[in-house]
Amino acid sequence: MASSWVPDIDPCSDFSLANIPFGIISTADDRSPHAGVAIGSYVLDLKVLAANTDLTAVFPGINGLTETFSQPTLNAFARLGRAVHRQVRAGIQDLLSADTTQPSILRDNPDLRQKALLPQRAVKMHMPMEIGDYTDFYAGYHHAYAVGVMFRGPQNALQPNYLHMPVGYHGRASSVVVSGTPIHRPVGQILLDPSQAGPKQPVTAPSRKLDIELELGCFIARGNEIGRGISVGEAEEYIFGYVLLNDWSARDIQMWEYVPLGPFNGKNFATTISPWVVLADALEPFRARAIENKTELQAYLEEKREDNVFDIKLEVDLTTAEGDTTTIGRTSSKHLIWSFPQMIAHHTLGGCPMRTGDLLGSGTISGPGGAGERGSLLEMTENGKREVLLYGMDMRTFLKDGDTVTLRGFCGPEGGRVGFGECRGRIYSSLQS
Amino acid sequence: MASSWVPDIDPCSDFSLANIPFGIISTADDRSPHAGVAIGSYVLDLKVLAANTDLTAVFPGINGLTETFSQPTLNAFARLGRAVHRQVRAGIQDLLSADTTQPSILRDNPDLRQKALLPQRAVKMHMPMEIGDYTDFYAGYHHAYAVGVMFRGPQNALQPNYLHMPVGYHGRASSVVVSGTPIHRPVGQILLDPSQAGPKQPVTAPSRKLDIELELGCFIARGNEIGRGISVGEAEEYIFGYVLLNDWSARDIQMWEYVPLGPFNGKNFATTISPWVVLADALEPFRARAIENKTELQAYLEEKREDNVFDIKLEVDLTTAEGDTTTIGRTSSKHLIWSFPQMIAHHTLGGCPMRTGDLLGSGTISGPGGAGERGSLLEMTENGKREVLLYGMDMRTFLKDGDTVTLRGFCGPEGGRVGFGECRGRIYSSLQS
Repeated sequence: MASSWVPDIDPCSDFSLANIPFGIISTADDRSPHAGVAIGSYVLDLKVLAANTDLTAVFPGINGLTETFSQPTLNAFARLGRAVHRQVRAGIQDLLSADTTQPSILRDNPDLRQKALLPQRAVKMHMPMEIGDYTDFYAGYHHAYAVGVMFRGPQNALQPNYLHMPVGYHGRASSVVVSGTPIHRPVGQILLDPSQAGPKQPVTAPSRKLDIELELGCFIARGNEIGRGISVGEAEEYIFGYVLLNDWSARDIQMWEYVPLGPFNGKNFATTISPWVVLADALEPFRARAIENKTELQAYLEEKREDNVFDIKLEVDLTTAEGDTTTIGRTSSKHLIWSFPQMIAHHTLGGCPMRTGDLLGSGTISGPGGAGERGSLLEMTENGKREVLLYGMDMRTFLKDGDTVTLRGFCGPEGGRVGFGECRGRIYSSLQS
Repeated sequence: MASSWVPDIDPCSDFSLANIPFGIISTADDRSPHAGVAIGSYVLDLKVLAANTDLTAVFPGINGLTETFSQPTLNAFARLGRAVHRQVRAGIQDLLSADTTQPSILRDNPDLRQKALLPQRAVKMHMPMEIGDYTDFYAGYHHAYAVGVMFRGPQNALQPNYLHMPVGYHGRASSVVVSGTPIHRPVGQILLDPSQAGPKQPVTAPSRKLDIELELGCFIARGNEIGRGISVGEAEEYIFGYVLLNDWSARDIQMWEYVPLGPFNGKNFATTISPWVVLADALEPFRARAIENKTELQAYLEEKREDNVFDIKLEVDLTTAEGDTTTIGRTSSKHLIWSFPQMIAHHTLGGCPMRTGDLLGSGTISGPGGAGERGSLLEMTENGKREVLLYGMDMRTFLKDGDTVTLRGFCGPEGGRVGFGECRGRIYSSLQS
């Protein structure tokens, strides 16, 4: 990959020329949310570019992009399909490349560069997509196994269906928020002593077991008709791109409510995503094999390719109110036992329609190793039995008010990194009780 | 209530002058979906009315209704709030009343009557709302108890949380469809012999246990800010209106998939709603007491009013491919142990945001009596052990391809009925297998 003429791109930047992730921005000059791409510590404002350029010269044969880049979400762009995403990303890479074939458009056009290339700190990020439905899967095998051991012992750690299907549940689309949105500790019904015999009497209180879940999120580019599924082989063509996802979880609320219909208030108070959508094509060079599943799979889940997931380095940082930051978890997105194409094929097997902008979560991703490879405090602390040591002589079982959790993720070598930026949320006290 | 000048209103019509439900219609002259109300066997086209009338004379002080009634969903109207819904319904009731105070607008205006008052068979009904999120509760006590006995015996029929909170789960908004939409039998993973010992091996096949669930659906008028709940006392002001809802369920798919994260493909292939939204005010005269809950309730669920549900007569008809129709279930919507205000207060307790157009299902409604009072075939047939006898010398355990299920519901006396019309779906074979 060539280098970019954009100044001061840190070799460790998530947003190298090899990436070109799409997001929704607003600026001092234009408060209406619209599309942009990240490059180094800058953002290229695609609405400004479109207003000052003949886009058909950059993206031959693609019409309507000026209108598309003015939209307040990326849904219209996503709907154009993988072939267009590929061509538009390549066109932008060329514009931003040191040896661009069209230097007059941007590189050698100081007026437009000044207007269209903005420092990231000068833009506000918004939700990238309008989400129709949000579904959260449970494909992080090491997480599912560790949590199962914790609650049911090693013999029954995984439910009988776990290795046969990508188990998932319908999440809450209305509470998916973009990185940086404050997270208020949820109030809920809690059973203070679940092990107590006799009739159960809950209390209503702010959660005492507020946790994170480190996940990869996948946005759907285009949908299927109700009644007709998407096969595992064609599913890649339905994927727009990926974000980091923190599925905040109130373990005490979840524990009391979830039998028999699944997680509800323990999850639906907030889910944070990173603002930049890394296009599916940008992750292609970083494919890896999922965790081996020795179960005889149903035919609709059988994939031809073996490298069906991505090896994205993932990190969880916890920053205390005092400002000390500790990386409490490090793992990789390859630790999944089901791929997103398998999740999509399963989700639509009965005919359930996907729509542009639908969000799928991978489920919590944990490595096979110790506490430092885990994607949730539930695992790191064995449900609060042990403490995680933090810089500043501090300790945590679950999150305290004032804590900030930041997820990070990237692949690739220095100078050519494809990363996600931050997926960040700070915990505030309950607004109600 | 006065009578209407609209001709030929059957005394048993669901759409008496006391009702005035809102829906989204298209017509031969205007294919763009827009708003209408039902009256007897007619529809009053509100877009045509608005285009030919000074609406501020009919609805003084309310601006922008011409635009609102031209929208392809009722969301903009719902967002205006209960006070406006009340005033608009009263204004339309006056226009359609035999002793209308404004006879020149419609009653004595043959030109406009011809254009705006259309036979129902001349309009096509569309989805009334754009649904953000769909949540399905489990508040039908007799259903929850009967199903619990079936699978866990009478000692453990209800889970420990059931009487403490309105248990619910996030459903799938993308597969909510309007009455009349074809329902294709879902394919899914099924465990043919769940009782078999040893490792479980599922098959992938069309569901053999396709069922209905008779429910009441509730549409949200306006939402709350993330982090701030809606109290049980103020929840009524957030409700737009009600529809009948058939939560089609594939029992065999559901049984294998639902532990531990709840129903997924067993439900997300389709949910049918009736097309006319009966405004919350129209149901006010038909209040009743919910099933008594002797549990000590958490404060946030305590209601001041005792008549917290509605007594709507509900019926389930099954029509075979041969055309024989049997009413297989008769019950009332009063058989709930949680009210919609309680569901809303619980749903938002942790700060989950509701949005205009969100849909809440009550859960399956069954009476306390025998098979004839049940809202699902699962209960009527004890999970397929007994058959339901149909006209035409036919029998059913679960639904066959070609079957049509129609839900009906109404309250009030002849001549003044407030009803929902039909919530209907016909079963077709799988499009895939």
